[in-house]
Amino acid sequence: MRAAVLHAARDLRIEERPQLPLGPAQVRVRIAAGGICGSDLHYYFDGRVGDFPVLEPLILGHEIAGVVVEAGAEVESVAVGDRVSVDPSTPCAACRFCLMGRPNLCLRMRFLGSASTRPHSQGGFQELFVTEARQCHVVPADMPLVVAAMAEPLSVALHAVARAGDVLGREVLVTGAGPIGALIVLALRSAGARRIAVTDISDTALGTVGRVGADETVNVKTSPDALVPFMRDKGRFDVSIEASGAVSALGNCVECTRAGGRVVQVGMLPPGGVPVPVNRIMAKELELVGSYRFHEEFAWAVEALATGRIDVSALLSGTFPIDRADEAFATAIDRERSMKVHLTF
Amino acid sequence: MRAAVLHAARDLRIEERPQLPLGPAQVRVRIAAGGICGSDLHYYFDGRVGDFPVLEPLILGHEIAGVVVEAGAEVESVAVGDRVSVDPSTPCAACRFCLMGRPNLCLRMRFLGSASTRPHSQGGFQELFVTEARQCHVVPADMPLVVAAMAEPLSVALHAVARAGDVLGREVLVTGAGPIGALIVLALRSAGARRIAVTDISDTALGTVGRVGADETVNVKTSPDALVPFMRDKGRFDVSIEASGAVSALGNCVECTRAGGRVVQVGMLPPGGVPVPVNRIMAKELELVGSYRFHEEFAWAVEALATGRIDVSALLSGTFPIDRADEAFATAIDRERSMKVHLTF
Amino acid sequence: MRAAVLHAARDLRIEERPQLPLGPAQVRVRIAAGGICGSDLHYYFDGRVGDFPVLEPLILGHEIAGVVVEAGAEVESVAVGDRVSVDPSTPCAACRFCLMGRPNLCLRMRFLGSASTRPHSQGGFQELFVTEARQCHVVPADMPLVVAAMAEPLSVALHAVARAGDVLGREVLVTGAGPIGALIVLALRSAGARRIAVTDISDTALGTVGRVGADETVNVKTSPDALVPFMRDKGRFDVSIEASGAVSALGNCVECTRAGGRVVQVGMLPPGGVPVPVNRIMAKELELVGSYRFHEEFAWAVEALATGRIDVSALLSGTFPIDRADEAFATAIDRERSMKVHLTF
Amino acid sequence: MRAAVLHAARDLRIEERPQLPLGPAQVRVRIAAGGICGSDLHYYFDGRVGDFPVLEPLILGHEIAGVVVEAGAEVESVAVGDRVSVDPSTPCAACRFCLMGRPNLCLRMRFLGSASTRPHSQGGFQELFVTEARQCHVVPADMPLVVAAMAEPLSVALHAVARAGDVLGREVLVTGAGPIGALIVLALRSAGARRIAVTDISDTALGTVGRVGADETVNVKTSPDALVPFMRDKGRFDVSIEASGAVSALGNCVECTRAGGRVVQVGMLPPGGVPVPVNRIMAKELELVGSYRFHEEFAWAVEALATGRIDVSALLSGTFPIDRADEAFATAIDRERSMKVHLTF
Repeated sequence: MRAAVLHAARDLRIEERPQLPLGPAQVRVRIAAGGICGSDLHYYFDGRVGDFPVLEPLILGHEIAGVVVEAGAEVESVAVGDRVSVDPSTPCAACRFCLMGRPNLCLRMRFLGSASTRPHSQGGFQELFVTEARQCHVVPADMPLVVAAMAEPLSVALHAVARAGDVLGREVLVTGAGPIGALIVLALRSAGARRIAVTDISDTALGTVGRVGADETVNVKTSPDALVPFMRDKGRFDVSIEASGAVSALGNCVECTRAGGRVVQVGMLPPGGVPVPVNRIMAKELELVGSYRFHEEFAWAVEALATGRIDVSALLSGTFPIDRADEAFATAIDRERSMKVHLTF
Repeated sequence: MRAAVLHAARDLRIEERPQLPLGPAQVRVRIAAGGICGSDLHYYFDGRVGDFPVLEPLILGHEIAGVVVEAGAEVESVAVGDRVSVDPSTPCAACRFCLMGRPNLCLRMRFLGSASTRPHSQGGFQELFVTEARQCHVVPADMPLVVAAMAEPLSVALHAVARAGDVLGREVLVTGAGPIGALIVLALRSAGARRIAVTDISDTALGTVGRVGADETVNVKTSPDALVPFMRDKGRFDVSIEASGAVSALGNCVECTRAGGRVVQVGMLPPGGVPVPVNRIMAKELELVGSYRFHEEFAWAVEALATGRIDVSALLSGTFPIDRADEAFATAIDRERSMKVHLTF
Repeated sequence: MRAAVLHAARDLRIEERPQLPLGPAQVRVRIAAGGICGSDLHYYFDGRVGDFPVLEPLILGHEIAGVVVEAGAEVESVAVGDRVSVDPSTPCAACRFCLMGRPNLCLRMRFLGSASTRPHSQGGFQELFVTEARQCHVVPADMPLVVAAMAEPLSVALHAVARAGDVLGREVLVTGAGPIGALIVLALRSAGARRIAVTDISDTALGTVGRVGADETVNVKTSPDALVPFMRDKGRFDVSIEASGAVSALGNCVECTRAGGRVVQVGMLPPGGVPVPVNRIMAKELELVGSYRFHEEFAWAVEALATGRIDVSALLSGTFPIDRADEAFATAIDRERSMKVHLTF
Repeated sequence: MRAAVLHAARDLRIEERPQLPLGPAQVRVRIAAGGICGSDLHYYFDGRVGDFPVLEPLILGHEIAGVVVEAGAEVESVAVGDRVSVDPSTPCAACRFCLMGRPNLCLRMRFLGSASTRPHSQGGFQELFVTEARQCHVVPADMPLVVAAMAEPLSVALHAVARAGDVLGREVLVTGAGPIGALIVLALRSAGARRIAVTDISDTALGTVGRVGADETVNVKTSPDALVPFMRDKGRFDVSIEASGAVSALGNCVECTRAGGRVVQVGMLPPGGVPVPVNRIMAKELELVGSYRFHEEFAWAVEALATGRIDVSALLSGTFPIDRADEAFATAIDRERSMKVHLTF
């Protein structure tokens, strides 16, 4: 079976790999779709994500869905033939953070397709993938598997909204109209936000988030003063969610969020110190909180997609077969051409 | 009657001023003690605090206590002869923040001794001070008025602890062993914190906070690696309170606070952007929250001082009569000689 | 102009009344639609609501909408010709609860059509109604005014959901499929609840809530054991909302809510003590919280109706002109025939 | 070695029992002191606690302390000779409640000296007790072991205060001046409560809580109207903690707690439905929350006792050697003679 293996920056090879043996609580999944995420792009183009370089051949991919083709003897939760979306997280269920109800902060997390541990945690961009059965969430027979593969990034968005606290009836600013920002708009709308404004520097991206529910979009490059009215009288938005990874966007969140409000950082900023107007956080008694991956939200995401309560179809930019992976990555990084690109196998 | 009037940086003059007329809901207080605060020091030495320069003669002073000598016709809550501590805040009680239960974030706050509004809000470093009766909190006859004047900075500390959320049983890091840091240690101890560590760069200041209840003190200048053990495994402290105004201290809070924990910024940092490791806040899902002044805590502070539940006597560095005000300011800024200096009138 | 005036139980008279003078901050509204609420039914059929008997002629009605026909000199927020939904609450904006951000708990609340104060607060079942302009929320020209009159009960439902805390992704039980229960289902769905089950004793009512979004309905009269599976292992639902006013329903909420979950009481139970399994609340560490009327939710409700994000049309049971008011009340109390009945003027 | 074995109501026998084998992660503790708790009294006098009758011989005791005399091969956290307080809880660390950070709600909890599981969980009223090492918390050499045995009920009190939310600066009503009520007063004081009022029907008990920190005590039997002033204007206390198990006391909590406040039920009420004024909970938007046992608070309790921050000595009513156990129980149930009675071994 074939896998997409990254050896170094821009050195992705489609390699033949032997099938792995199957444990009694595991299943073998024929992967149908794998979304390309921002961290995959960093691994592919930079050879690293933040502090974690690729030090050994790494199979990328943590937004994956497919069909169960073999199940271990003890597996009861899924059956051969089931279509599944795969949760890429395996927390230890024993550390203090897991026992605090915060498994996404687990001290010994294994996360698919990540160089943050040694040996690296191999991901799902491969034809036949062995995983724990409990990571597999069954999806309806009529759900396209590219949609099922959206459960992972949608989980990130839902977690960010959960970290924002109660958004019912609230006015919310989202900075960043990339895939996560767009999914956050969908998640906010599903959670009852009253008004959603989104900033970005790409009109193409802003157009897409407008179509999926943003009430207002602001191109902060072409309309640099458009946010000024939102900054008056100690700010307008009850909540801001920073999903762009741009330092200036975080500054905008701090200024545009009303005193006493909350700013959620979900985008990955440059490592180390970045300039933040902390005195404004102090004097406005803001709450700047981090949002990292997800936990129980994966099940919510699968259900929201299965029932159609959240419709991500407007974000799907197209698929590429695995042997055109380089083309897929080139497309995925081009914001004028794509929102979310999937590999197929 | 005499007042200490700041005309410019290091230009403080003791001037004779006429007595103000008294409104029906006001009282005239013979000020006995006025604490010199960090913002007073900034006004005195720099001619400004943050964005607010002294643009007209300004009477400083917002940590004041005295004796009521005259009361307006409608005043019922205090009587001539009462010893009072004066709350320096007058929120509008009508803006959205006041009606949200957050009057310290009031859009139209008047705060004694501040250049943040025009005309400036004149403060309490004057012999006979006219204020609203509702700002006066009666203290016991046997409480020294220098202690009563500590209600204001203690309120700041109590508010910071309230912003920290539930600290009962928690391990807390306080960065900064100045007057506010020391009062935070007292406030934390009174709120049931289990373990309190304090950092500073002055052994003198650290010695004082050790005497008022810190379990551990760390001189981050002479022992730069002493915090490393607290950073392991995603951090040790449930809560950190940044009370030094040093950017590096905020970085230490982020690193030493356990994932999912809370960092409270109460110290005033340099204006504009300061470098903050926001990616760590994101990946550890920390909560960085601001704490600004106080509200209901003033009444708590008065009561805690009156009952002796909080004992601030170890922080009192001495008093200077108003005509030695320059000497008082010079002493107050010297951390080797003083924690909290008071003027007397 | 005519008004529907209640003199005693079942003694509602359509009377000619003089027009009231208009204050400078007031508007005169030609009422188009007025919903009949459960408390109106209690006044009409019992002559009282809970502890409050009708002691003087009382114009009922607090779910009202109409068209502005005259505006006082100082009015800016609405204009003659505007179609408006009228918020029936006038909190004092000065008591401790108002200043705590809880104006619905105001000590001096005036609420339209209520016998809880003397003199009674006259309501909106009258052709020309004078009210403060700030109570009027403008609705779009194409929104039927019977829909606009639903803003008030929808506000009650949204407030109950807000009191439930974060419901995004949660499983929720609603006991009671009356108008408030049905609106709570709509509000929960708009707030991202993952699964909603509803109980009642009327299949007609349950059918309606099924059509507006309940995932599961249980007739606890005809299927008394149907809730048993939800009680196992310390309970199934994250949140329960009691909207029936039946004591047995509250018991079901306590048993079916998972340990650590929340039960919201919004229905009005019999006055005095009602039997509650408090030991189960204790041992499961449940949170039983009250929900009373609403505050900021009125504006959310108007906007949700105006944008169509919440569609209440399935709950509208029909209208009766004011001179058929007795027939309207008889219909409104018959759950087999109606969900929400409106008077027109 | 001897154990105090309950065979039926009032049938407690001191029996010789063989020593149990020691597992590698276990220790053998020579028990020095064991507190008699309310549930022990129910088992002894009634043969049952709530729904759980004594169905097989049961060794009571879950408030125990002693000296480690033997340690299994893998034990590192304690050593032979250590003086320890024993946490009686063993949650499963795997069920959904444990993984939610709520192990006290564990579906498979083992708790010392309890008939709630079959076979019963044998308790600590025995000379040599085998327990998991991780349940043992080392106490200082100079701490009396009767004080160390107070860690368990103090944990219950600390947990109740934690469930009350932030009590710093708050006014609190405690109903019930038994051992748990008295420990709650100590816990509240240590957590910064501003004012504490306590009700009971025993002047003896009220006298004791007055000595350990209550600001005000009310005998609701001899002064039945004394609470009326606290009920005015929607209530006075921010928080109430019901620790008496009396239904009327819960009613007092509901009436005396200010609108929007919190009532914590920690006392055990009669099983089944008890009359509660739920309409008042609804209209005042109170939060009635349960508090059940404890979790992390055990470590806090040990430390608070070890440092002297909480001093329970005023609550210690005396000790009885195990062969006078019947006399100990007779004394323990007599509120005029005792607050907390211990057995010694």
